[in-house]
Amino acid sequence: MAAVRTEKDLLGTREVPLDAYYGIQTLRAVENFPITGIPPHKELIRALATVKKAAAMANQEIGTLKKEIADAVIQAAEEVISGKLHDFFIVDSIQGGAGTSMNMNTNEVIANRAIELLGGKKGDYLLCSPNTHVNMAQSTNDVFPTSIRIASLRLAQGVLESLAGLQNAFARKAEEFDSVIKMGRTHLQDAVPIRMGQEFTAYSRVIARDIERIERSLENLRQINIGATAVGTGLNAMPEYSAKVVKHLRQITGLDLTHAENLVDATQNTDAYTEVSGALKICAVNLTKICNDIRLMASGPRTGFAELKLPPRQPGSSIMPGKVNPVMAEVVNQVAFQIQGNDQTICLASSAGQLELNVMEPVLVFNLLQSLSILQNAVRVFTLHLVEGLQANVERCKELVERSVGIVTAINPHVGYETATSVAKEALETGRSVREVCLERGILTKEELDVILNPMEMTSPGIAGSRLQLALQK
Amino acid sequence: MAAVRTEKDLLGTREVPLDAYYGIQTLRAVENFPITGIPPHKELIRALATVKKAAAMANQEIGTLKKEIADAVIQAAEEVISGKLHDFFIVDSIQGGAGTSMNMNTNEVIANRAIELLGGKKGDYLLCSPNTHVNMAQSTNDVFPTSIRIASLRLAQGVLESLAGLQNAFARKAEEFDSVIKMGRTHLQDAVPIRMGQEFTAYSRVIARDIERIERSLENLRQINIGATAVGTGLNAMPEYSAKVVKHLRQITGLDLTHAENLVDATQNTDAYTEVSGALKICAVNLTKICNDIRLMASGPRTGFAELKLPPRQPGSSIMPGKVNPVMAEVVNQVAFQIQGNDQTICLASSAGQLELNVMEPVLVFNLLQSLSILQNAVRVFTLHLVEGLQANVERCKELVERSVGIVTAINPHVGYETATSVAKEALETGRSVREVCLERGILTKEELDVILNPMEMTSPGIAGSRLQLALQK
Amino acid sequence: MAAVRTEKDLLGTREVPLDAYYGIQTLRAVENFPITGIPPHKELIRALATVKKAAAMANQEIGTLKKEIADAVIQAAEEVISGKLHDFFIVDSIQGGAGTSMNMNTNEVIANRAIELLGGKKGDYLLCSPNTHVNMAQSTNDVFPTSIRIASLRLAQGVLESLAGLQNAFARKAEEFDSVIKMGRTHLQDAVPIRMGQEFTAYSRVIARDIERIERSLENLRQINIGATAVGTGLNAMPEYSAKVVKHLRQITGLDLTHAENLVDATQNTDAYTEVSGALKICAVNLTKICNDIRLMASGPRTGFAELKLPPRQPGSSIMPGKVNPVMAEVVNQVAFQIQGNDQTICLASSAGQLELNVMEPVLVFNLLQSLSILQNAVRVFTLHLVEGLQANVERCKELVERSVGIVTAINPHVGYETATSVAKEALETGRSVREVCLERGILTKEELDVILNPMEMTSPGIAGSRLQLALQK
Amino acid sequence: MAAVRTEKDLLGTREVPLDAYYGIQTLRAVENFPITGIPPHKELIRALATVKKAAAMANQEIGTLKKEIADAVIQAAEEVISGKLHDFFIVDSIQGGAGTSMNMNTNEVIANRAIELLGGKKGDYLLCSPNTHVNMAQSTNDVFPTSIRIASLRLAQGVLESLAGLQNAFARKAEEFDSVIKMGRTHLQDAVPIRMGQEFTAYSRVIARDIERIERSLENLRQINIGATAVGTGLNAMPEYSAKVVKHLRQITGLDLTHAENLVDATQNTDAYTEVSGALKICAVNLTKICNDIRLMASGPRTGFAELKLPPRQPGSSIMPGKVNPVMAEVVNQVAFQIQGNDQTICLASSAGQLELNVMEPVLVFNLLQSLSILQNAVRVFTLHLVEGLQANVERCKELVERSVGIVTAINPHVGYETATSVAKEALETGRSVREVCLERGILTKEELDVILNPMEMTSPGIAGSRLQLALQK
Repeated sequence: MAAVRTEKDLLGTREVPLDAYYGIQTLRAVENFPITGIPPHKELIRALATVKKAAAMANQEIGTLKKEIADAVIQAAEEVISGKLHDFFIVDSIQGGAGTSMNMNTNEVIANRAIELLGGKKGDYLLCSPNTHVNMAQSTNDVFPTSIRIASLRLAQGVLESLAGLQNAFARKAEEFDSVIKMGRTHLQDAVPIRMGQEFTAYSRVIARDIERIERSLENLRQINIGATAVGTGLNAMPEYSAKVVKHLRQITGLDLTHAENLVDATQNTDAYTEVSGALKICAVNLTKICNDIRLMASGPRTGFAELKLPPRQPGSSIMPGKVNPVMAEVVNQVAFQIQGNDQTICLASSAGQLELNVMEPVLVFNLLQSLSILQNAVRVFTLHLVEGLQANVERCKELVERSVGIVTAINPHVGYETATSVAKEALETGRSVREVCLERGILTKEELDVILNPMEMTSPGIAGSRLQLALQK
Repeated sequence: MAAVRTEKDLLGTREVPLDAYYGIQTLRAVENFPITGIPPHKELIRALATVKKAAAMANQEIGTLKKEIADAVIQAAEEVISGKLHDFFIVDSIQGGAGTSMNMNTNEVIANRAIELLGGKKGDYLLCSPNTHVNMAQSTNDVFPTSIRIASLRLAQGVLESLAGLQNAFARKAEEFDSVIKMGRTHLQDAVPIRMGQEFTAYSRVIARDIERIERSLENLRQINIGATAVGTGLNAMPEYSAKVVKHLRQITGLDLTHAENLVDATQNTDAYTEVSGALKICAVNLTKICNDIRLMASGPRTGFAELKLPPRQPGSSIMPGKVNPVMAEVVNQVAFQIQGNDQTICLASSAGQLELNVMEPVLVFNLLQSLSILQNAVRVFTLHLVEGLQANVERCKELVERSVGIVTAINPHVGYETATSVAKEALETGRSVREVCLERGILTKEELDVILNPMEMTSPGIAGSRLQLALQK
Repeated sequence: MAAVRTEKDLLGTREVPLDAYYGIQTLRAVENFPITGIPPHKELIRALATVKKAAAMANQEIGTLKKEIADAVIQAAEEVISGKLHDFFIVDSIQGGAGTSMNMNTNEVIANRAIELLGGKKGDYLLCSPNTHVNMAQSTNDVFPTSIRIASLRLAQGVLESLAGLQNAFARKAEEFDSVIKMGRTHLQDAVPIRMGQEFTAYSRVIARDIERIERSLENLRQINIGATAVGTGLNAMPEYSAKVVKHLRQITGLDLTHAENLVDATQNTDAYTEVSGALKICAVNLTKICNDIRLMASGPRTGFAELKLPPRQPGSSIMPGKVNPVMAEVVNQVAFQIQGNDQTICLASSAGQLELNVMEPVLVFNLLQSLSILQNAVRVFTLHLVEGLQANVERCKELVERSVGIVTAINPHVGYETATSVAKEALETGRSVREVCLERGILTKEELDVILNPMEMTSPGIAGSRLQLALQK
Repeated sequence: MAAVRTEKDLLGTREVPLDAYYGIQTLRAVENFPITGIPPHKELIRALATVKKAAAMANQEIGTLKKEIADAVIQAAEEVISGKLHDFFIVDSIQGGAGTSMNMNTNEVIANRAIELLGGKKGDYLLCSPNTHVNMAQSTNDVFPTSIRIASLRLAQGVLESLAGLQNAFARKAEEFDSVIKMGRTHLQDAVPIRMGQEFTAYSRVIARDIERIERSLENLRQINIGATAVGTGLNAMPEYSAKVVKHLRQITGLDLTHAENLVDATQNTDAYTEVSGALKICAVNLTKICNDIRLMASGPRTGFAELKLPPRQPGSSIMPGKVNPVMAEVVNQVAFQIQGNDQTICLASSAGQLELNVMEPVLVFNLLQSLSILQNAVRVFTLHLVEGLQANVERCKELVERSVGIVTAINPHVGYETATSVAKEALETGRSVREVCLERGILTKEELDVILNPMEMTSPGIAGSRLQLALQK
């Protein structure tokens, strides 16, 4: 039989494993919420401990918390921040409303560790109480939102870095592929020539906008509501305390945090989270399009577009020898779907706020932190294992342009839409090239066609062969 | 100055155009809800009038409504059912909760028309009152859900018919293309041969399942809650009335309607609608995949897969002569997106029910009826203008299979995975065919290869060339 | 038999009603896309005509379009902008890819009207051709996105104005209700007192952030891609033309439009639309919460919270006399659901872009313009008919605070968490007030309680009765 | 330095930890997909091993796999099924397309364990090869879908059981509360009386429909595609093998599995999954409504509806003594949001199928299995910790009914809508009861009112006091 201690609360008693840093509140939560089996995100645990540390510093400074206890709480919190004791954060990611249990779990772990540091035994809450000391002047309703914001901002940093890496990789490929002429396609139908470099510039630029959007979405996230306590009115939190705790949080985290101007607003509204998730979602939508394009251009090797060659990452089939699949793009596609689904959950949770509080924050933060993590992870490996190793199949691209009928568009301004249409039709029906049909019909001379049908010329603004036209007009 | 009459209610008076069949309640709603500019669906108006007709019949039969008035109400309702007076249904599709205004609009139009039939002038509500007579023993909370269900069932019939047409068209194409060997692709990479007919069978079958799903989803929809009145308890509705009104609704509509066993349940829950929308959404997801496939297989004409030829429906570009785009597939793709978005709205509305009622029904029914209509419309033209005219590009399909390396899979059981992999690799690197490499290396004889690499054989279960293998084993 | 003229294109001929301004391409589209029955948004029609006007001006200036024809095209376009000829825009909102048919419809209407102005008869396309003249140097792929952006920017202006009105109304109510003490609630459970004014400040502030978010989301929307032609390379559009057309569009619309720096990017990516829709969606989520709060606080009149009185807008029930429902909040709730569903459709459409183009733009713009319109409309009537007439039920609010147990939180710092808990428990079990229990137990004196349990004091930061505490400590 | 062995594949070599049961393919996948950090669901691992076992049995029986190897593979698979070796399933839940890596991981773990059982050392793939032996006659494209279905069916069983428990609990409460008269509310406004038992019957019935819907959605899931191999044509899988493997799977799992009639269809389409997810989503929507109702009815204790008392599960606040929150309902609300978001991801993944395969299955199954698990878990604790302990606050319910004005509806048929409206208005304005106003005005006698205003009578169909009316009419 495992050694236990007995703890007590409003509702009764529970036996807690003797060596557990958590206490009765945590145990009740574990009993109540056996939902996903997924523990809270490491960054959330760290952020909670960071808030506890800053609060203890502030409370000690304004004289409401004895230095001795404050020091113990601070050291205990630092241990959690450094990655220790995480195994005692055992409340499920999806739990009762508002994150109360997660806050309680944090209070208990830090209190029990502080008790040890003060020379006591776990459970001697007279030495250091989870509620009275660790949670002093706090409420779940300001601690949890503040922690969500800190954790999100930290993960967002990684997202921005990984996206910057992707954007640069696309920009480098845009340069590398700048002279690769290929067929442009609209409606998946042959259109007019384009340079592969132009396509990659488009990818680079949309990712650049995503970076800006995500960056901007972090602004509201920096407004923290610590000091709001239960409903934002700040009851039981002295104004001096609030000012100090924000200052400490800025220093500890190095993040540009500011105190929300209106704490009632900041306690009940969750639009800062939906804003970040919304920006991630748009990025996910854009990545979906890019990955689909890359998979399409890399389709083949023999029966597809085959314009791009992807670096092989793993054998693609246990039954088809030699098959290599675009797995790095596929995983980004899937991550993009996940982020879109998560945004749905986040919006549902956000719209379920009622009066002074949104109790649906646990599921909200679970999804938000997951989105931030998986986007960062996926973009990083996508850049490294796919984009950086991309190669253009120059010969294939050239061959397709030459075979194409879409280049007939360039003769349009020279011979008129009707004649051009008739050339296109004949070329398509007979399987011959636009050049051949034009020559045979005597519509344009070989010299004119050399200039007008120059694919490179078609990839820049203006009428292809317009210099020629000027010459012709003379 | 237009002639007006003055009407009065609990909140005061309003001037109503003299020739308007609607009254003050409708006017208030128009003032309150200038939202989408889209009037209620024709089928919803018809269904509402149908309920009014059946209620008048029932009330007359149980003796609570005088025959004279009942007859006038019934005739007025019939006029609406036949398509008349729809211009007087002017409340916006998105309106105040529960559809009260829509019910009031119906009551007023029918009352005023009945008054005329009774020899009075519009507004003489002593002759026939919107509330007391037209709405007798009814509440918006039973009339509106009952009408939604009738309208939905009618539209669903058209959906099922159009899907049956599509399924048959796919099945016919499956037969037509049964001997067309083409390259199968997984991960958009060359896999092993397949018959185009097999692909179309898959399309036919998934649509068949959609039909079943949609049909099944209509079962709950047939349970109507007329007689529930305000909260489902049936207050102010005599049981004899309820039984009769259901019977009349069955007869008038020809639909297999039944009286909901529990009217409190049927009044507050909207799962019957989410169920139908959910079935439509799955169909939309499936159509998305099918349309994407068709657009991909029809990509070209010169630089894409070009395995399918679509019937040209309209010139595709004002700038690129001769371009024809897969517009019929594109419109289905878009309808599929709309249906998925509508389902989202429907689920949000459905989950917002509170206690005895879900007041979000107007937006719910707006989206549900739209989904039913556009699915029906889109599938019908897609079948007619695209699927029925599809042609396989047999030569192209054959050429791609012959060029492919994926057929190496078939030699796998004969020479082992390692040797097969090495053949595949060499073929890919050198640009030669699997057959050539095998022959050159002396791995298999020409005779063996003729049997093993027979693409048709590869499209049926079993080891390609297994008869041969038996022979070899001897 | 109606008089007709015969028109011809690549695919054959069609009979067009003699007095129709549209032509064969429009007819084909009508035949192909009988989907929603909803015509394009008026603002989209105006924006398309605006682009045609600007293009004609530019083409005339650079000498590619004769002045006579240009003048006729410009005048015809102005007529459309002014609201005329809209009845001839008959292509369905959901149509074939990219909006080609919508562009064609515009070209045809303007061409035929220009022909009349030039003295010809409709259909005399030699005088003015839809493709060659009206569409000169354009492609659907630059015209349609440019028009979407112009139409969206115009509607967004109205959205911002209506939201500013709402924000102000909330701010005024916040002042008006600043001294109304009421019970704050978290988890729908009694928490601690708050001032109703504080709650309305929170509403005002979140709407202020929505305004900022929507404004910021318009930045990318201002980048137009006119001059991109088919795939963004600008083939067949002279650079001088492009510069001029942008300049004219700025002047005609008065919008701060700029030429997209990279036209390939701007032609294939649709993130500017998802960004706007995303901002609208967040606003919808926030409005959902606000409307839910208002409906909850107005619940009653006798058996609910009854803290707020809404202006009566219409009788609420045909069966329950005297009932008045919160219809203005309900309609906003529903609009919020619609906007969220629309965002889903928009994201699906946006992620379906392929290579050089996103052909799903018709359904995208259909939903985007609808969201902009209905948000604007709903917010306007909500502000006018509900928020501005809101009244606090001051007596009821006060009574609830006095009855509540949550105020026990204020004695917490004075007597400790354990004692406070025990007071709360006793009060709840016995039905007595916190004050009574405290007095009876002799925990605090009447004088102390007067200060500590002063609800107004509890609504400001700090420990309620902290001055007292200082006094006590002496 | 940890001991390693070197493994090799098409792309090169990798060092594998000497004691690892996985091999090079797994390592590559770990390197490629460091995404969520969440390993595959235990039930999915078990299902994969189950398929491997059944395949080995079938292959041995038809003579393509030696008994000795088959026995080792079967025993290794059984160990995995029993829960062993799960630590070696280290591929991320979100991975490259189609689940190839997950299948490879399974092949490698089973192969290496089988090698040990055959007396060899891990990595001696000549004894038992992951591809040739463990994966014999299989492809990821039939193994993975088959495993998803088996895992889903198993979890679904638990979902159905937990929902049955909830339905029964609601039904029992419906009986228990059958005589509790309370105020019915529509639009959150007082309507007419209802019995609390009637409300709980509605909850019970909607859950009953959810059970039916989920059950029905499992039908398609039972169709497995094992034997389809790469693209559904069954290449390299002998028909005898396919028949046997299905038979074995039925026996091992005890599930009513059948062989999909059309394997091409079953390999490329994922509608069976969206169907299950759709049914779960509808259930989530219904649970949202129910939990919202319960939280609303339990709002209080002093300033809310306070009609229901929830069993206290944990102290609700670290700052507000005595506060107890409806955490069990809140956690179900959050799970419902998660399931809806997951459905979104699932539908996105499902619609991304292309041609012969849907490579997005990993993210799809990740979400599907999560939804099944969390629904089951949440419903179980919700039933146990909340529903079963629910108590009605009978006195409070009664008091609210008596105070209400909505009961005026019952006098409607007796005195007419106009008079009733005027009574309601006076009662509301003066704060008096309907009974008082009626008596004062002499509209009805005390005896009549006793019958008509009997709330219990109002909760059954018919005109309240209709017997009286008959009496009066005499």
